[in-house]
Amino acid sequence: MSPPVLPLACPLPLDRYPAVTLAHGGGGRLMQRLIGDLFRRAFDDPLLARAHDGATFELAGRVAFTTDTFVVRPLFFPGGDIGRLAVFGTVNDLAMCGARPAYLSAAFVLEEGLAMERLWRVVRSMRAAADEAGVRIVTGDTKVVERGKGDEIFINTAGIGTCPAGVDPHPARVRPGDVVLVSGDVGRHGMAVMAEREGLAFETAIASDLAPLAGLVADLLASGTDVHCLRDPTRGGLAAALHEIAVAAGVRVDLEEPAIPVADDVAGACEVLGLDPLHVACEGRLVACVAAADAARALAALAAHPLGAGAARIGAVAASPTPMLTVRGALGTTRIVELPAGDQLPRIC
Amino acid sequence: MSPPVLPLACPLPLDRYPAVTLAHGGGGRLMQRLIGDLFRRAFDDPLLARAHDGATFELAGRVAFTTDTFVVRPLFFPGGDIGRLAVFGTVNDLAMCGARPAYLSAAFVLEEGLAMERLWRVVRSMRAAADEAGVRIVTGDTKVVERGKGDEIFINTAGIGTCPAGVDPHPARVRPGDVVLVSGDVGRHGMAVMAEREGLAFETAIASDLAPLAGLVADLLASGTDVHCLRDPTRGGLAAALHEIAVAAGVRVDLEEPAIPVADDVAGACEVLGLDPLHVACEGRLVACVAAADAARALAALAAHPLGAGAARIGAVAASPTPMLTVRGALGTTRIVELPAGDQLPRIC
Repeated sequence: MSPPVLPLACPLPLDRYPAVTLAHGGGGRLMQRLIGDLFRRAFDDPLLARAHDGATFELAGRVAFTTDTFVVRPLFFPGGDIGRLAVFGTVNDLAMCGARPAYLSAAFVLEEGLAMERLWRVVRSMRAAADEAGVRIVTGDTKVVERGKGDEIFINTAGIGTCPAGVDPHPARVRPGDVVLVSGDVGRHGMAVMAEREGLAFETAIASDLAPLAGLVADLLASGTDVHCLRDPTRGGLAAALHEIAVAAGVRVDLEEPAIPVADDVAGACEVLGLDPLHVACEGRLVACVAAADAARALAALAAHPLGAGAARIGAVAASPTPMLTVRGALGTTRIVELPAGDQLPRIC
Repeated sequence: MSPPVLPLACPLPLDRYPAVTLAHGGGGRLMQRLIGDLFRRAFDDPLLARAHDGATFELAGRVAFTTDTFVVRPLFFPGGDIGRLAVFGTVNDLAMCGARPAYLSAAFVLEEGLAMERLWRVVRSMRAAADEAGVRIVTGDTKVVERGKGDEIFINTAGIGTCPAGVDPHPARVRPGDVVLVSGDVGRHGMAVMAEREGLAFETAIASDLAPLAGLVADLLASGTDVHCLRDPTRGGLAAALHEIAVAAGVRVDLEEPAIPVADDVAGACEVLGLDPLHVACEGRLVACVAAADAARALAALAAHPLGAGAARIGAVAASPTPMLTVRGALGTTRIVELPAGDQLPRIC
């Protein structure tokens, strides 16, 4: 089944309802039209078309189940938008469990006054992203809140994926001696959103790395590597992802700073703003912990995929009485990386 | 495993962080503590404790998958709160697919400034509701938005349930000759929330009918009834639920108004406010369409369950070239019930 060709312009009659009203969330005629003419049209799936309280389908074996709400501001940024992010974000969480993403739900909180054209742009983008990632959006929900009680669009996606037999990457499986790999340069997504939101003009526009990672994970698993742990370094960046792994596994993770790929434009923007790229979110990168004996073939498998072209070996895992994350700089001095209390970059996902 | 005894007071140190801050959504230490000390403590599930990007578990056969975001205002109302509603709402959507609810996700959008004690009250209530409904909350997400960009708490729950073999209630299976049953009096939830929000004082406080319906559905199915369709009349009330069924099945649904159970206090409050109880939401009622030959045993099965004590036969399904919903009043005159454009009662779920 080939994906539908969706019109560029919103299929709802904009002369009558150019913007979302409270009535669009009220369970009446306007909500029926919004769901039928906009959401079902874009997502166009036989399970969704059944118009029931939920979708039903067959599953067998071990499955992964995850959820994420997206509140990114602004809705559109270089390299993506909230719709694409909502699809790939959940696809990637499933992929990090070693699962093949299959089914997604999509639930919207719309702010009264949102331009219907903006909603259509987001929903179209979600459909395109779902096709790209090979997942189906099969059930959904819409709520509308009063002006000033939301912020244009919040999207929750939950996802179900199927786990291949014997595959169970998990932080607790990380062991001293493991090697830490990253699939590409870090910090793009956070800086792209930040620059767009704050109207910062750098020499070149930084585009988000936003991408679906299930294909890359499949290739990595197909290489025969026993992948101990996978994690996508989103909120809190590489530092938060590896910190969590260190705590869950009760180990020390030692990074080599010069080995961590950071694009020049991202590094420059971080320097201007006083940010450390280690703490800046990615949305199309993964961190993998594998046994040292597997490191070369794992790296080769990552590098052979378009989304892993910038893959690098960035560190190793050591035994430690206290879980921690360290970074050795270019000059050979090592520092402990603490988790910051919060984040310098709110609402980037 | 017996449910944990959760403290009444919020387990986070309120002297330092009495309210939610943007940093609580930032991926750093404060978010880790919020997740660890509040969410994981309350939901306390081994799958959640694995602290991965998603939960994994075994499933086999046909499953149901559904999602709902809850934006009810105020957070607490007679008969429930947003947490209890978020659990039962999704449990009920699964039950309406004929499924046994099993796993839930929980994703929160918190407004900066939300009192931590209020969040704890909601989260405790979700855990109690999950225990009551026999479901596990196994994966989650937390986002924080700036003050004035949300409204205290929005909660998305997605759910997975397992469908017994041969059970597939669905609007398209409704046929002329079917009988329409309702499990109890209608309109309670909408009026309870409305009265609380607007500070309306009726003679007696109206409590929401909020309840988990999977047990009632199981009893109905166990009676041997071939249930053609199940629907919980939430947003838009009984009228919207039956209107949707009429459209999906291409039939006319004829209701007998005097047979529709409406409690005196709800009827009185509706009259004062100029509302029709047919359009007011329930959160603990179901509508069932069954063959006429099954009607008596279906009604008996419903009435034998505490949540179906007020069950009634309220109408029948007829062939019609145009799908529609009609109501015959006490005086014998019949009117067509149109879906309103929106809803008189926004944000009741």
